[in-house]
Amino acid sequence: MEKNLEQISSLCKRRGIIFPSSEIYGGINGFWDYGPLGSELKRNIRDAWWHFMVQWRNDVVGLDATIIMHPRIWEASGHAAGFADPMVDCKDCKKRFRADQLCEEQGKKLIQTGKTFQLPEGTVCTACGSKNLTEPRSFNLMFKTYVGPVEDDSAVAYLRPETAQAIFAQFTNIFSTARKQVPFGVAQSGKSFRNEINPRNYTFRSREFEQMELEFFIRPDEAVELICGKVATLADNPDLNGEPQENWGWEVWHRYWVEQRLAWYKLAGLPQEDLHLYWQTKDELAHYARACVDIEYAFPFGVQELEGIAARSDFDLSQHQKFSGKSMQVQDDRLRLVCAEMSQEAKDAFKAKVVADWTSRGKDAAAAEQFVEDLFLGRYVPHVIEPSAGTDRLALALICNAYDEEKLVDGKGKEDIRTVLHFAPALAPIKVAVLPLVKNKPELREKAWKLFTDLRRDWKCAWDETGAIGRRYRRQDEVGTPFCVTVDFDTLENDTVTVRLRDSMEQIRLPIAELPAYIRKAITL
Amino acid sequence: MEKNLEQISSLCKRRGIIFPSSEIYGGINGFWDYGPLGSELKRNIRDAWWHFMVQWRNDVVGLDATIIMHPRIWEASGHAAGFADPMVDCKDCKKRFRADQLCEEQGKKLIQTGKTFQLPEGTVCTACGSKNLTEPRSFNLMFKTYVGPVEDDSAVAYLRPETAQAIFAQFTNIFSTARKQVPFGVAQSGKSFRNEINPRNYTFRSREFEQMELEFFIRPDEAVELICGKVATLADNPDLNGEPQENWGWEVWHRYWVEQRLAWYKLAGLPQEDLHLYWQTKDELAHYARACVDIEYAFPFGVQELEGIAARSDFDLSQHQKFSGKSMQVQDDRLRLVCAEMSQEAKDAFKAKVVADWTSRGKDAAAAEQFVEDLFLGRYVPHVIEPSAGTDRLALALICNAYDEEKLVDGKGKEDIRTVLHFAPALAPIKVAVLPLVKNKPELREKAWKLFTDLRRDWKCAWDETGAIGRRYRRQDEVGTPFCVTVDFDTLENDTVTVRLRDSMEQIRLPIAELPAYIRKAITL
Repeated sequence: MEKNLEQISSLCKRRGIIFPSSEIYGGINGFWDYGPLGSELKRNIRDAWWHFMVQWRNDVVGLDATIIMHPRIWEASGHAAGFADPMVDCKDCKKRFRADQLCEEQGKKLIQTGKTFQLPEGTVCTACGSKNLTEPRSFNLMFKTYVGPVEDDSAVAYLRPETAQAIFAQFTNIFSTARKQVPFGVAQSGKSFRNEINPRNYTFRSREFEQMELEFFIRPDEAVELICGKVATLADNPDLNGEPQENWGWEVWHRYWVEQRLAWYKLAGLPQEDLHLYWQTKDELAHYARACVDIEYAFPFGVQELEGIAARSDFDLSQHQKFSGKSMQVQDDRLRLVCAEMSQEAKDAFKAKVVADWTSRGKDAAAAEQFVEDLFLGRYVPHVIEPSAGTDRLALALICNAYDEEKLVDGKGKEDIRTVLHFAPALAPIKVAVLPLVKNKPELREKAWKLFTDLRRDWKCAWDETGAIGRRYRRQDEVGTPFCVTVDFDTLENDTVTVRLRDSMEQIRLPIAELPAYIRKAITL
Repeated sequence: MEKNLEQISSLCKRRGIIFPSSEIYGGINGFWDYGPLGSELKRNIRDAWWHFMVQWRNDVVGLDATIIMHPRIWEASGHAAGFADPMVDCKDCKKRFRADQLCEEQGKKLIQTGKTFQLPEGTVCTACGSKNLTEPRSFNLMFKTYVGPVEDDSAVAYLRPETAQAIFAQFTNIFSTARKQVPFGVAQSGKSFRNEINPRNYTFRSREFEQMELEFFIRPDEAVELICGKVATLADNPDLNGEPQENWGWEVWHRYWVEQRLAWYKLAGLPQEDLHLYWQTKDELAHYARACVDIEYAFPFGVQELEGIAARSDFDLSQHQKFSGKSMQVQDDRLRLVCAEMSQEAKDAFKAKVVADWTSRGKDAAAAEQFVEDLFLGRYVPHVIEPSAGTDRLALALICNAYDEEKLVDGKGKEDIRTVLHFAPALAPIKVAVLPLVKNKPELREKAWKLFTDLRRDWKCAWDETGAIGRRYRRQDEVGTPFCVTVDFDTLENDTVTVRLRDSMEQIRLPIAELPAYIRKAITL
């Protein structure tokens, strides 16, 4: 079936999954609210991510930092100076565009020379057709506010445009209290804000959105080499599905996280064939980045990024070290002990090798020497692999993927359309609907209500006693509830219930006593 | 034991529960980050609230709305005009104070005449002692920003100072999609922002904080009277622990929620004797509020509010109706059917009674008549009971309550201090620590690791293999882990483990097979 965003967003509105923010006041462009079912879906996504990335590992801890932080953080990160989009105004109709999008829509490409931009010949306003456009100029995407009662420059602060920087800013606090050694990671999920010029594609590009980010800190390859003698690369064909190994270099760690994240998306229910890996080219990479892979999903409006997984070297921690004056080095006892055993000759040879390597890449010899001296003492600034995912984007991908309109033909040849959301059971907003077959038999209703209150201790359940049972099944199909449990007259006799399965529409009969285990098994991630 | 905030905050820093935001840049006043263990504690608080308030009920649904909303929302709510604190500057030392706090610290009371404030005679600057203070003037506590690329008045937006308003703004969307009838509620938890002049008392009064709010919508008492003939009040001694009843008026609903919330705080581990109910006096109540109770906790810095539970009449929805021009009335079929059966005489008598009642309270007769006419058609704007809790305040209360320094004396008479956090097991950041007795016996470590990976599927677990077992117990005591499970040589023989209990320090021996059920029972809310 060709997925249609109109139909999907209409279902989301109609069934309380997603609403436009502030709709009674005409809405506010780029802001979306999650209704009763959408808020459950997002809770499930966050939890599934946290379980997989934090709870089920021994090398990742969590953080929950503030949205407003010290403004110097955004100077260190580069966002204050560089986190900007080029924008263009139409002087005739006064509409404003992101210059790159305006060009793209006309099959053209924005011309970039260093940090300045120019529109290619013949670009017009897509709203009124005018050629009377301003030159592109930079517009910083961070929302600005003032902390404290005085609105002056000293009070300026920003809403974070990403959750990642808080992890870097708290790195030393976490490292000194969490009792973890490198390699280890810090995970955080929460709201971020970007003042997009043109929010678009439903919830995909919003001004307020949620992220789930991991910063996974690893040893520099040189430290791995000192400890293990040789750095494993992808050419060594490492086992990426087993336990991480001490000899892995950044390249293997990066690929490991790509594989981990793909495995997670699979658990979340996205079919492998709809996920695309896009490897950024050398030109596209930030100067400090060694590799970046986007995990993309085939949305109805095109193939677009769900998550970026970047190998960012030691750029982030080094920047904060520079801007804060606080050391971001860790003490790595394993490295220190290994180096303490090395001969001076071995050390000299190693240093010469590193200096040659660094200078061949245009870096400073003195810096390389200092780096190696610190390594010999067991000290370095960790490098980082960053899998950074968008919660709202994933919610939208899951809804698009789950959405289906099935043509059914009943026994009498009558055709019917069933709208259904085939969510992975673990992520479905409602896990079980309990349906008393009839309304007017008190023992039956009471029996069903008892079952409902028992099941909802563990899972989000729905209660529905209105309308024909077939219509009630369809209502649950539309919001992706994997199990409908019907309590009928036989239930009163023998304590069994009918479990109707969303995807196959099959009905099975189960003893109530077996129901919890049956559901638990099916909805476990 | 006298609780000391210095010691508590020092433990929080040392063990990764709470850090000052942006500390490497000198911090930012009024912002706090939750570290590895604090982020788990907050997740547990949010989940426990959601389970109790949403998942375990059939009359409450969730919402997850944006922080930035249409600015008209804050005009309707009154925040744009009225959400302000009076502030005072010292003209000599340039320090700025909240006028009421400045007076309070000097045993004085700020003088209020309508919307203007005056300092009482003799107030001085508490920083430098000067009497040279400005007159108090209003300072709006909402953080301001601009949405879109132009920084002009039309682009002004605010960070929400409370999560509640989004619930009112989305009321019609939720009511029309959630298949709930009044009485029902909408719950939301999330970040809010208040640009406090003087953030203080550790995390208690922060500029960025998290709330857990329920707006529970009820019928106006007049509708209850039409349906049930009589409105139950507290004088009728209703059973507040059973299922809510149709004849409850606002007064009973309000008290019901006070009792529900007290029950929840008890589940969360706060002793009843440290919770205080403060009933706001007539003078303190907002003009539209019928009652407001604060649930207060005895913090080390004084008895302070954890949650406010207000009966807010139909003020909020009516304001949004007025400002948006969109009807906030619900259609109540039960009421409509009852009224359809009424005689004209009964209707006239009812109307006369309501008009007399309203006018006796200084309200408009025409408005009362319209209200009753609408009631007869089954239509009204719902009233609301609002239990509004602070997540960070509760986290702090739980930490303060849990904190203890116990003097222990060992068999040889040696004294020792044990620092322990007696968290309710359901809310403890870590549920189980798995400890292999020795490090250097591979089968034993492997056995322990297997147990650890099994348990962490369901719960946040810790792994600790460093140091003497007694020291490891103490490390877990300090962060409130209720169970330490030690895998020893006997485990290899008979598959039993030692479970050491945090509070009693008792040790029991359990078969591994019985461990999950044992833990599950103990940590269930």
